[in-house]
Amino acid sequence: MTAVLLDVDTGIDDALAILTAALHDSIELVGCTIVWGNTDVAQGARNTTEVLRLVGHGDVPVAIGAAGPRDGSPARFSPEVHGDDGLGGFADRSVEPVLGGESAVELILRLSHERAGELELVAVGPLTNVAAALDADPSLPERVRHVTIMGGAALAPGNVSDAAEANIWHDPEAAQVVLDASWDLTMVGLDVTMTSLITDAHRERLAAGGAAGRFSAAILDHYLGYYEGWTGTRASGNHDALALAVAAGLVRTTLSPIVDVTVDCSHGPARGRTVAELEGEWGTWPDREGARHRVVMEVEPGFEDAMVELIASAR
Amino acid sequence: MTAVLLDVDTGIDDALAILTAALHDSIELVGCTIVWGNTDVAQGARNTTEVLRLVGHGDVPVAIGAAGPRDGSPARFSPEVHGDDGLGGFADRSVEPVLGGESAVELILRLSHERAGELELVAVGPLTNVAAALDADPSLPERVRHVTIMGGAALAPGNVSDAAEANIWHDPEAAQVVLDASWDLTMVGLDVTMTSLITDAHRERLAAGGAAGRFSAAILDHYLGYYEGWTGTRASGNHDALALAVAAGLVRTTLSPIVDVTVDCSHGPARGRTVAELEGEWGTWPDREGARHRVVMEVEPGFEDAMVELIASAR
Repeated sequence: MTAVLLDVDTGIDDALAILTAALHDSIELVGCTIVWGNTDVAQGARNTTEVLRLVGHGDVPVAIGAAGPRDGSPARFSPEVHGDDGLGGFADRSVEPVLGGESAVELILRLSHERAGELELVAVGPLTNVAAALDADPSLPERVRHVTIMGGAALAPGNVSDAAEANIWHDPEAAQVVLDASWDLTMVGLDVTMTSLITDAHRERLAAGGAAGRFSAAILDHYLGYYEGWTGTRASGNHDALALAVAAGLVRTTLSPIVDVTVDCSHGPARGRTVAELEGEWGTWPDREGARHRVVMEVEPGFEDAMVELIASAR
Repeated sequence: MTAVLLDVDTGIDDALAILTAALHDSIELVGCTIVWGNTDVAQGARNTTEVLRLVGHGDVPVAIGAAGPRDGSPARFSPEVHGDDGLGGFADRSVEPVLGGESAVELILRLSHERAGELELVAVGPLTNVAAALDADPSLPERVRHVTIMGGAALAPGNVSDAAEANIWHDPEAAQVVLDASWDLTMVGLDVTMTSLITDAHRERLAAGGAAGRFSAAILDHYLGYYEGWTGTRASGNHDALALAVAAGLVRTTLSPIVDVTVDCSHGPARGRTVAELEGEWGTWPDREGARHRVVMEVEPGFEDAMVELIASAR
């Protein structure tokens, strides 16, 4: 049983990660903190709450965090990818989240004490909240078991610029703070999420399932349509849920060297690139002495089938 | 018959490119301009002259160019890769090049007039000389048929930093000038040169050949040793000769989208990265409207065998 705190900017693929975390037997979802990114934090909190309630997990604490990037520049959202409401037009905007009065940083710190040594922090949006939690309490890494992020691209091209993946590009400075902290961190980036695909066959299985399945099928229609326009194929990367799956051991990684990762925080054309210590072209990459960043380059296939079955068969 | 002007920083792999250009029936080698890079320009000129004389082409004009990068920062050479003399310890340091009194820029401009419309400019070192020629005469692109560079990495990792390939990293500002000029340019980078391999089997064939073959086998020993330390395999990328081969049509490209390439001229961790407009992960990449940079991602295999045979069987 893995105690997971999900930091999300919900988002279509975030919704699938939340459903998986809520439904899977081996995961205890202990909280959701909301960060800006795919959508604004108010909508992100509504979407997160809606998704949790859909599977009877409305009691999971939800706390709102940063509304924009660490450097104070304006927040830019991704309505073209996730729809104006973050859920492809299927969000229930009347949902009123029950917020406990804690900020995202406060919830992260409280859970880090209550679940000291066992908390798996899974951050699948811009890393603004996690960086802010490190600012507030630099001893946080001592109590967190492991950090897994969905973000970056080591060798793959970017998805918001030629070089950068969206979560890192949204807040490179925050990402660098999180990489610099003294915890062990796993990076699940486009190298592997863009080869872990959700297809229309998955969507059909979801549509034939229960309420969570039908909801997932509905929101995925927009997402697959976006990917079709971008890649020519009606298949999307399974970004956020794959990061959760790696964190909770639901999927086996088959190539994931431990190397140093540096974020390009310049204002050059590679701003937001995750520059990883991956030299040589042939075979595997060696772990690097003293490095702390596990960069997932390959996973065993099949997690998407299992995830879809889990969600489709709920209740 | 392709009229080729080679801009070189000779270098072990440059030597193979020069031998190929001098020996191949379908190439007329009209000149060599020397740029800093693998070694300093004086040694580069000696090495170039030595290689040309080895195959009876001592009459090809050689002209010396820039001794260091465009921005005036100190030149850094690559003795660990190419040896202190640029030729793995086998350079004849007593060679005295016959220089015609022209600078590299002057030779480039003169040949661009004499061979207007047919000149193939193949630049396999830092792009300092070519950028300087564009400064001296911005109309140069009107007279050059095509430019091919060995340099950059679109999706591959770098070889001098995690992000950057050596030729571009040596002088990013010059590379950007060359990419910005209004000619059509083909980029032969690590994406394809690191999968076009020279092995010990090739070296054995060269060693059993004539003088050019035996010389090539000797200098390759150092180069293969360097690659073994770097990649774990005694096999080297065939960088410069592959760029020449693409330029002269000696090898067929099987995937080479025309996209925009931007050089990272920041001082961030991706300095010198060639950021290419390669979005999407599956299948081929489309040519981009208005783009002028052909980025070679795959070539038909087999050129190395043909090159080795050409050099081994000379004279």
